[in-house]
Amino acid sequence: MQSAPTPPSAPSRRALLTGLGLAAAAPLALGVTARPAPLGHPDQPVQAGRTVLLRGASLVLTMDPSVGSGPLGAIENADVLMQNGTISAVGTALQAPRGAWVVDASGKLAMPGFVDTHTHLWQAVIRGGCTDRDLFGWFQGCTDPQRGRLTPAALHSFVRLAALDAVQSGVTTLVDWVDIFSYDLIESYVRALAGTGVRFAYAMFPPKPDAVLVTKVKKELVDPVPLGSFQVATHAARAVQDLNRAHWEAAQDMGVMLNSHVLERPEQRADDPIGVLTDIGALGPRLLINHAIHLTDAEIAAVAEHDVRAAHCPLSNMRLGSGIMRMSEFGRRGVKVGLGLDGGTNDSSDFHALMKTAIGLQRARTTDAGVFPQVHDVLRMATLGGAEALGIADRVGSLPPGKRADLVVIDPAALNFAPRFDWVGQIVFNGRPENVDAVFVDGRALKLGGRLVEVDTDRVVREAEAAATHLRATA
Amino acid sequence: MQSAPTPPSAPSRRALLTGLGLAAAAPLALGVTARPAPLGHPDQPVQAGRTVLLRGASLVLTMDPSVGSGPLGAIENADVLMQNGTISAVGTALQAPRGAWVVDASGKLAMPGFVDTHTHLWQAVIRGGCTDRDLFGWFQGCTDPQRGRLTPAALHSFVRLAALDAVQSGVTTLVDWVDIFSYDLIESYVRALAGTGVRFAYAMFPPKPDAVLVTKVKKELVDPVPLGSFQVATHAARAVQDLNRAHWEAAQDMGVMLNSHVLERPEQRADDPIGVLTDIGALGPRLLINHAIHLTDAEIAAVAEHDVRAAHCPLSNMRLGSGIMRMSEFGRRGVKVGLGLDGGTNDSSDFHALMKTAIGLQRARTTDAGVFPQVHDVLRMATLGGAEALGIADRVGSLPPGKRADLVVIDPAALNFAPRFDWVGQIVFNGRPENVDAVFVDGRALKLGGRLVEVDTDRVVREAEAAATHLRATA
Repeated sequence: MQSAPTPPSAPSRRALLTGLGLAAAAPLALGVTARPAPLGHPDQPVQAGRTVLLRGASLVLTMDPSVGSGPLGAIENADVLMQNGTISAVGTALQAPRGAWVVDASGKLAMPGFVDTHTHLWQAVIRGGCTDRDLFGWFQGCTDPQRGRLTPAALHSFVRLAALDAVQSGVTTLVDWVDIFSYDLIESYVRALAGTGVRFAYAMFPPKPDAVLVTKVKKELVDPVPLGSFQVATHAARAVQDLNRAHWEAAQDMGVMLNSHVLERPEQRADDPIGVLTDIGALGPRLLINHAIHLTDAEIAAVAEHDVRAAHCPLSNMRLGSGIMRMSEFGRRGVKVGLGLDGGTNDSSDFHALMKTAIGLQRARTTDAGVFPQVHDVLRMATLGGAEALGIADRVGSLPPGKRADLVVIDPAALNFAPRFDWVGQIVFNGRPENVDAVFVDGRALKLGGRLVEVDTDRVVREAEAAATHLRATA
Repeated sequence: MQSAPTPPSAPSRRALLTGLGLAAAAPLALGVTARPAPLGHPDQPVQAGRTVLLRGASLVLTMDPSVGSGPLGAIENADVLMQNGTISAVGTALQAPRGAWVVDASGKLAMPGFVDTHTHLWQAVIRGGCTDRDLFGWFQGCTDPQRGRLTPAALHSFVRLAALDAVQSGVTTLVDWVDIFSYDLIESYVRALAGTGVRFAYAMFPPKPDAVLVTKVKKELVDPVPLGSFQVATHAARAVQDLNRAHWEAAQDMGVMLNSHVLERPEQRADDPIGVLTDIGALGPRLLINHAIHLTDAEIAAVAEHDVRAAHCPLSNMRLGSGIMRMSEFGRRGVKVGLGLDGGTNDSSDFHALMKTAIGLQRARTTDAGVFPQVHDVLRMATLGGAEALGIADRVGSLPPGKRADLVVIDPAALNFAPRFDWVGQIVFNGRPENVDAVFVDGRALKLGGRLVEVDTDRVVREAEAAATHLRATA
């Protein structure tokens, strides 16, 4: 009997998912011309789900007051059991199921992973650029020229680098607002995101009301990624109100969020973005507004009344001199606000610095250390609050049994963190990405023992560097 | 012939200098009762000076326009030769002297080490504490109670940890303002500083006009440390004007700087510190004022006119809600301003974050990205500017031949730093302590390949943790 023909050699699931398989095998480093292979349509979840028992963390902040004590749901000396990508139990002295992989977390702190509600990862290519410019100068001098030069392979290398930087810093979910237009580039972008194992929303800005392309990107590129989701991105302004309306309609048709920059600069008052979003009927829980700095009292009231969600980007706002978001007012009215790193203006993914600055920026102008937000508030905003803003708090952002297992382990035994005095305060004020010992997304370990899992970091850096060198040479 | 009697076993110079010798051998970790052994009076400089050739750094910022190009004195693909603790040459393709130790710096960036003009290292014991308090609440709730509980051994463990944290972050010179009063504790403090190999000024706050103790501390404890120097610390206020005067007289007698906190909080207007310092005749280049936030125009003018030096502590100011220093005004008038981490309110030693925040805080209130300081300004403030503020710019702060060899090497090949776009901007906006690959002080390598040299970091952390646990238990 003749054997069945051998199927053509195919990349392994693992290779596809790490993004270091086909794409890396192509001559990315030097050629920057090869088109990455198709993403594929995995018909299984990312990780069927090894059982992991995180054993004996000295402190677990579940962010769920019903699971632990206090507003952050704290439990000392606790275990976290992850099965099939889900938190199945949190408590002391849990029994390890047969075959469970036991990870010793003694002396360490565990908490939900960070939810980055606003970024632009591709801007890793303009790190450190245009540092003396405000938003408009930065567009003109750095963002726009570089965006126009991107090739699919170069873009892949930058997005992969930036997404892995986010992951190593403890980000487990991110929302990437992307104004990149060709299908080839978008495919490369989504592949890079998917390859890192991070949970993401790809917020696509369509330059014209092109429902066909939007649907195609969602269906062909994003939907097949188990941890990927889709949003429609816009930039609300009177001058493009019809486009904003088309975006909002597309978002409604697809049942996804509309994601808009709003009043980042005082000059954008002229765009009347809140008025536009009101007029097209977008105000509501399916609208995410980014920056939201220069709103009037009435506008903040409208945002609150309609349960609009907001992304606060204090590091970016500080760098660009954009102004200070009126956090007390948003907090007082109960607006769901998450934190955002905001990509290239940040310029790297330090969520600890982001939390610290979210606190400090409010105090800077008031000379009052009692103003909102405090340590507990920013820890919540960085996790559960971000998930609430994105409408995914039923799945992530805190650690009660039943939620997806997105969490970070922080090692306080470091020169910049020890000794223990007030660990919760230390997470925010002393913590740095280098203290993030482990990162789990959907129960899968993306970082362990302070190192990314199955990622050749040197190669990721080298390929991004080579792509940047190539872009400079052809500029 | 009979051999000479063997001398009694003595700790090696090395053991004394690392602080990991006698002090660590004593039961510091658990007992917290042992008194550290005497510091000794080394009669040789710290390091007679191995010759080190730093080879092929991709970019050297000398901070001296006469050595390299532009305001930062930049040289690409350059070598730095260190001999006898001194920079002996900077340039391309230098010849390695016979026996030189060649350190490959290709792909890396070199610049002067950071000069921390204001800190309180012992406050590592209250990291993350009192995060919702302003300066006064923080004194009351965290600083004062903890200070009263310190033992010499516990203090040694905290200062050593914090000083090593500073060193690993690239700090090569620091000024520690210390209001700790007993000779035993001061001895322990100075020993811990000396043990790390960092260049330091010990600014001693004497609680009463006790010239004997001040002289004894300077002569017996600080002067014997080759990289140690002495300042007199005060806290200028009308209520203690006589004490301030005595401090100023002591500083003059010893030929050292007077170092005072000034107008950190708006409420301190009532203390009239600039008036006091004027009245006692202290305004001049031998006066360093810290924070200097709430000065009037006339006071800034007086500071500038008398060449008073200032330490700006933006991270601390943001955390405590102290206000925003009027940097443009100081800059416009040419006041010599350095940057300060300010110890426990910071809460760790991230000089990159400090530079970034020094820029961002000014922009936050102005919505103007063009305001002073810019990237070049903060890089200078963090190095040469700090040295100028301390009156030691003839020795450190930049890298022309002849200066002491205090420098850092930064490795940009990291997920949070690459790819190259504008390295100078990236140092400030992307850099993190983990990117500091090497640190040299006085030509001696304190950090190499991303790790502290000859320091058992785990042990340093463990001993600080044990001391903190003991303090909690006895509180």
